[in-house]
Amino acid sequence: MNLAVSASKITNTMIGFEHIKQISRTSPSKIVLLILDGVGGLPHPETGKTELESARKPNLNRIARDSLCGLIDPVGPGITPGSTPGHLAVFGYDPVKYNIGRGIVEALGIDLELKPDDIAARGNFCTVDDKGIIIDRRAGRLSTDKNTELCRLLNNIAIDGTEISVLPVKEHRFVLILRGEALSSELADSDPQQAGLSPKKIEALSPQAQRTAEFANEFVSQASSRLQHEPSANMVLLRGFSRRPDIPTLPEIYKLKPAAIATYPMYRGLARLVGMQVLPGGESITEQLDNLRRYYDDYDFFFIHFKSTDSRGEDGNFRAKVQAIEEIDNALPGLLSLDPDVLIVTGDHSTPATLASHGWHPVPFMLKSRWCRPDNVAEFSERACLAGGMGRFPATEIMSLAMANALKLDKFGA
Amino acid sequence: MNLAVSASKITNTMIGFEHIKQISRTSPSKIVLLILDGVGGLPHPETGKTELESARKPNLNRIARDSLCGLIDPVGPGITPGSTPGHLAVFGYDPVKYNIGRGIVEALGIDLELKPDDIAARGNFCTVDDKGIIIDRRAGRLSTDKNTELCRLLNNIAIDGTEISVLPVKEHRFVLILRGEALSSELADSDPQQAGLSPKKIEALSPQAQRTAEFANEFVSQASSRLQHEPSANMVLLRGFSRRPDIPTLPEIYKLKPAAIATYPMYRGLARLVGMQVLPGGESITEQLDNLRRYYDDYDFFFIHFKSTDSRGEDGNFRAKVQAIEEIDNALPGLLSLDPDVLIVTGDHSTPATLASHGWHPVPFMLKSRWCRPDNVAEFSERACLAGGMGRFPATEIMSLAMANALKLDKFGA
Repeated sequence: MNLAVSASKITNTMIGFEHIKQISRTSPSKIVLLILDGVGGLPHPETGKTELESARKPNLNRIARDSLCGLIDPVGPGITPGSTPGHLAVFGYDPVKYNIGRGIVEALGIDLELKPDDIAARGNFCTVDDKGIIIDRRAGRLSTDKNTELCRLLNNIAIDGTEISVLPVKEHRFVLILRGEALSSELADSDPQQAGLSPKKIEALSPQAQRTAEFANEFVSQASSRLQHEPSANMVLLRGFSRRPDIPTLPEIYKLKPAAIATYPMYRGLARLVGMQVLPGGESITEQLDNLRRYYDDYDFFFIHFKSTDSRGEDGNFRAKVQAIEEIDNALPGLLSLDPDVLIVTGDHSTPATLASHGWHPVPFMLKSRWCRPDNVAEFSERACLAGGMGRFPATEIMSLAMANALKLDKFGA
Repeated sequence: MNLAVSASKITNTMIGFEHIKQISRTSPSKIVLLILDGVGGLPHPETGKTELESARKPNLNRIARDSLCGLIDPVGPGITPGSTPGHLAVFGYDPVKYNIGRGIVEALGIDLELKPDDIAARGNFCTVDDKGIIIDRRAGRLSTDKNTELCRLLNNIAIDGTEISVLPVKEHRFVLILRGEALSSELADSDPQQAGLSPKKIEALSPQAQRTAEFANEFVSQASSRLQHEPSANMVLLRGFSRRPDIPTLPEIYKLKPAAIATYPMYRGLARLVGMQVLPGGESITEQLDNLRRYYDDYDFFFIHFKSTDSRGEDGNFRAKVQAIEEIDNALPGLLSLDPDVLIVTGDHSTPATLASHGWHPVPFMLKSRWCRPDNVAEFSERACLAGGMGRFPATEIMSLAMANALKLDKFGA
């Protein structure tokens, strides 16, 4: 293996959606995009090997030998992606341009279907003292059951001119949706982001947002009344007012008929946002791959989301993350037997177990197809993929590569 | 035509023509750019080796050992370049920004010299039934002789306010040129791109194009009358109305005195477009190199175009493409004996014989000069060049490298 590689550079050589639209075409070929969430890692201090380098993964390595390999930057060197920008980048969207608001992300995370003009905000239940000063921004991380009960209480707040929905997420977190005519998301947060201060009055950031600001402040005021006798969750904080972005969908850009097989609501929501049909997920990767087989004839692009690599990384459990990699490796024959025209395996970001959180490190990538021009990489890992034919590159280029290798792109220019 | 350039980061690592202009300088040093059209390939399924890896090519390999090597993306990962964007990128032009219309490409292809305001369209002779419905978009691919005869018939169509030229290309294809005052290329096609429909009336896409649309429709109407008794070619279809792009030339940007030695009209036309002097081509690479020697003292930049690598790739003939590579390798001593200050060998795109068409795959590149800082690459091939000092990079960066290595660029900034 040649490790003397290259000043390979992050050249975002995208030609832009308006051009891709003109050269993309429908064909029967199948693309499978398998995202191993947070798969990239860092060396274990004792062995010097990353999670991928430590795992027994004959199937991943076999695919690597037949693939075009590389390392992706979802956002850019040094930038740690949230799950949303990480996935959007892999789906071909400039994650800086298509910056999805926190409220929308939270709504996607509970699988809400939003109308284009709905305004979503992320809410926290919090604790304030008798002077209204925040003493706990998370209300002691109240239970999700209690959260659900309180959301029911706030959900029937009525305000003339807007329809209010309050939906529980988890622990202290909820989503507020404002629906109505001519609402604006240009609102500042009420959440001061630290204890010892009062919640802020929600300010309109533009004249058109004045009315929406009044609705939001009225909501906070009524919520405060209804919660006043609660022992801990006696106030709410709101932030990240946003609306669904106007994002061109994968069917519009690539003429694809795409489907998602994901178990977590957040990723199902993201998939829906970019125009994928959300198929039944399943409780395990094996069930996900069973569903892939079941629906294989009906779509030409499949996004399969594998979560445990990220969860075990976030736990800081190196050994468990290695096992998650071995779990997906064991399941792969069920995918390989379908022999998709294009198979891509990568991640949305790194989640090194030693860091116990998302990291900024680039993520191993491989693409296998009859037309991919394999390189000399024989292992699916961070260091091995560095010597791959793609070198290090922006994740936003994955979709053009996928389309080209599926022979779904015409020539550009005469 | 939508030139709205997106996230195109092709230019990211370039300092831009306006800066290059300021630091470029004339010097006696010679740059030779040898383009092996479509040279990049894919592994043969039986041997696992690409065309370049299969060829016996001691001269190319020897140059590689002394060179800075890499792999170029003419447009971007996954994007299959047409010949025009492929060459423009190597000549330093962002191929998305300088998107040349189909009519102009066709005119370049027959070595036409266009004035800046001429409007060119690609034409097809086609067959329509007695209701005017297209039954064959290519008029049975009529012979080039018949085409030439019919073009002569249409060439003397006279329309007040514009001068009409109709010139044969090949088989059913011709070029229409409208010359005159205040013409516009903002016209929709008349070609509906499928049989079973009538040719469309040519619509003006802007108010200023109204008059030109009338000229074009009048041409179609008169052409239809003149062709009405033809057995197959009884109608014309027009598309890709365009004018010569306003493109800064190589002499303007780089203060070069460039010349082209190409045998195919298309590449001669492209060379002229970017300000090269078109020298006699010759029937073979040996004759091309003889011409290089003959004119060597008169220019400081030479573009030499070698076509057979692409043609044999398009034929899907792996063995013949290998032989074309061996042919150029054999001819190289005639070039090396001139000992140019900078020698670049690369391609405008890949044409893998297994794919039998242009491909999106990056193209091997090498640059040899006294000042090039050689890497460890010892073979001119796709996989070997991946480990080169340039790694994988946009073709648009080649010209600055060429200029620098010829010591024709001053320092940038103080």
